[in-house]
Amino acid sequence: MATAVSPLAVALPDLPPLAGVRLSSAAAGIRYQGRTDVVMMEVAPGSTVAGVFTSNKCPGAPIDWCRAALAGGRARMVVVNAGNANVFTGKAGRDACAATADAAAQLARCEPQQVFVASTGVIGEVLPHQKLVAALPGLHADLRADSWEAAARGIMTTDTFPKASTRLAQIGGAPVRITGIAKGSGMIAPDMATMLCFVFTDAKIPAEALQAMLAAGVEGSFNCTTVDSDTSTSDTVLLVATGQAQHPEIPAAAEARATMLADFAGALNDVLLDLALQVIRDGEGAQKLVRIDVTGAASDPSAKRIALAVANSPLVKTAIAGEDANWGRIVMAVGKAGEPADRDALSVGVGGVWMARNGAVIPGYDEAPVVAHMKGREVGIAIDIGLGQGKATVWTCDLTHGYIDINGSYRS
Amino acid sequence: MATAVSPLAVALPDLPPLAGVRLSSAAAGIRYQGRTDVVMMEVAPGSTVAGVFTSNKCPGAPIDWCRAALAGGRARMVVVNAGNANVFTGKAGRDACAATADAAAQLARCEPQQVFVASTGVIGEVLPHQKLVAALPGLHADLRADSWEAAARGIMTTDTFPKASTRLAQIGGAPVRITGIAKGSGMIAPDMATMLCFVFTDAKIPAEALQAMLAAGVEGSFNCTTVDSDTSTSDTVLLVATGQAQHPEIPAAAEARATMLADFAGALNDVLLDLALQVIRDGEGAQKLVRIDVTGAASDPSAKRIALAVANSPLVKTAIAGEDANWGRIVMAVGKAGEPADRDALSVGVGGVWMARNGAVIPGYDEAPVVAHMKGREVGIAIDIGLGQGKATVWTCDLTHGYIDINGSYRS
Repeated sequence: MATAVSPLAVALPDLPPLAGVRLSSAAAGIRYQGRTDVVMMEVAPGSTVAGVFTSNKCPGAPIDWCRAALAGGRARMVVVNAGNANVFTGKAGRDACAATADAAAQLARCEPQQVFVASTGVIGEVLPHQKLVAALPGLHADLRADSWEAAARGIMTTDTFPKASTRLAQIGGAPVRITGIAKGSGMIAPDMATMLCFVFTDAKIPAEALQAMLAAGVEGSFNCTTVDSDTSTSDTVLLVATGQAQHPEIPAAAEARATMLADFAGALNDVLLDLALQVIRDGEGAQKLVRIDVTGAASDPSAKRIALAVANSPLVKTAIAGEDANWGRIVMAVGKAGEPADRDALSVGVGGVWMARNGAVIPGYDEAPVVAHMKGREVGIAIDIGLGQGKATVWTCDLTHGYIDINGSYRS
Repeated sequence: MATAVSPLAVALPDLPPLAGVRLSSAAAGIRYQGRTDVVMMEVAPGSTVAGVFTSNKCPGAPIDWCRAALAGGRARMVVVNAGNANVFTGKAGRDACAATADAAAQLARCEPQQVFVASTGVIGEVLPHQKLVAALPGLHADLRADSWEAAARGIMTTDTFPKASTRLAQIGGAPVRITGIAKGSGMIAPDMATMLCFVFTDAKIPAEALQAMLAAGVEGSFNCTTVDSDTSTSDTVLLVATGQAQHPEIPAAAEARATMLADFAGALNDVLLDLALQVIRDGEGAQKLVRIDVTGAASDPSAKRIALAVANSPLVKTAIAGEDANWGRIVMAVGKAGEPADRDALSVGVGGVWMARNGAVIPGYDEAPVVAHMKGREVGIAIDIGLGQGKATVWTCDLTHGYIDINGSYRS
């Protein structure tokens, strides 16, 4: 689909090589023509791996495969295809995963359980995995340490720009790098945002420590974003540590480990949030990035549920598309969340200006900065529930004609 | 807003007088110009009343007023205005309700607590109730038994056609009539569909029996419909019994009462479902009416939650707008509901044709009737979960450019 690049797009950062990771991409013609659609990411022997997957009860076959493979805690290869999600494909779907992993494992000289597969695209069509398998030898021969951008492009579906993020961190005074790529644009809702995300580090970190940091990082990033409330069947975030960097060994004791990994965990969270916000910036039809801060709720989880009710409200999202600071619809969405809320204690602000306080509009509040704010690309909504100390921040985008165009056309 | 009449519109039925009810409407200029926007409905002394209201935690001032008034179980008058919802208006909103009820009570020579008020329209703007109060004497002088259509028109906001329904029933062999009018188009979601609905009968039924029948009827009608998942702050369904018909007295004993009211309750359910579906047919931007039948779920409530997840999925609704029988998105929506579901036991059908069974597409299923069905105005989706005996039916509409047009323009 020829769609203009999102007006919220950000430029791809420089992505230097990361020790122990090589990547390649190719055009296997699985669905798209004239573009790359399969990506191989090979990591050094001994790499550890963590993963977080969709909460959807009807997940794709690759999710089942990865969950089982994750039990080993080791990865050598990740193989991704775009255009066909291999979801609701029954035995054919399971066979496709196994055949892909077997073929990739032969090339990497590893067990199939060290190959992770991910698929994104249309649901319910059998994946022609013969095409995928046939592309693997060429992909393997093409593996290079500097192919990050091509990999980020090769996993795109309705995405209008490639997404990547990289940070330096230190472990015990030694530098390590974290680099991730992601794709996602629609079918984006928490648990998780509909997307694929592959993050790599050259640090040497045990799988269980990776898993704990990844789960916490996803909760504060992808699970705080929504485009359309629709939870994909294919959401996957993998975090792979190649162990190629030279740094002091991670201690086994929990407290000492946490101290040594504190900077790393912070940088990981940065990478995950950066990628999650890039996905929202590429939300189908998005014209505005919206940040919703809820304070004063009964608890943090309550604040998050309220914030997501606002973020998922079609009436709030269309109002933002119309550049209308319609705080009445925000009040409606707060109320529909079903969380503790007292209408007469509620305050709503937009762009740093409180418009309503304690259950009624503020007479004579200054509309001019609000109007100007609504015309911008980034909209901030503040909601104070006035009951307690709970707070949360979520991000979404507006709901526009572009979303209907993209999703109302035949079998996008 | 000049919007074309919904292609799903149905004609207003003949609405004969109902003993004990008189209606009138007028143009008070509260928000709209050149159309009626206030409606008065007067009922005979001794009329009983039941009500069901929004579950939104930030309800409008009229909801608070009606809930308190309902404790008395008696009604003499209902006053409705369109264009301003009197929501999130603080003390001014409470004062507006009291002033309106006081003025109407003087005209009807009753207690203010026998006056029910309802408002629909924009949220957060103070209701200029002086205009409403000033219109009351004229409305009172104009009351007539045959003004049903004008009343149905006077409560409209973004509605594109007036909504009414009438049925005859019998109580102890004697005929009674049930007639209702409703408005609603957007901000429609269960608990309840965003709408106002006023139902009258000439039967003589105690308030507590009315309340039980109304609550059950709303659960099977308005609470099974959704346009956009947004729950209004103003949802109101009132049921008033004028007691003017001649029929045997309703017995006090529960079993005998239920037997005598069985036919009435069935007719009431018909009226409520008819009105609820008219609201969906007028869903903002709706081009297709969609019925979703879920069977084989773990329980009836589980089936309803799954059906609503499908009905509220933007990706399913845009696919229907695009006339795409995209059962993959239906599978996604089933899975995101979080209810018990086994992907490999799931079946999905459209227009009476099963397309996927036991977790995979049915090879060579007949696409032609499915394609033809999707081009029609009424779309039926069948989902069998394959786990148990739970079932539910919900109705929704498609999500189109029209919805964005209506809600993305300034302060609709």
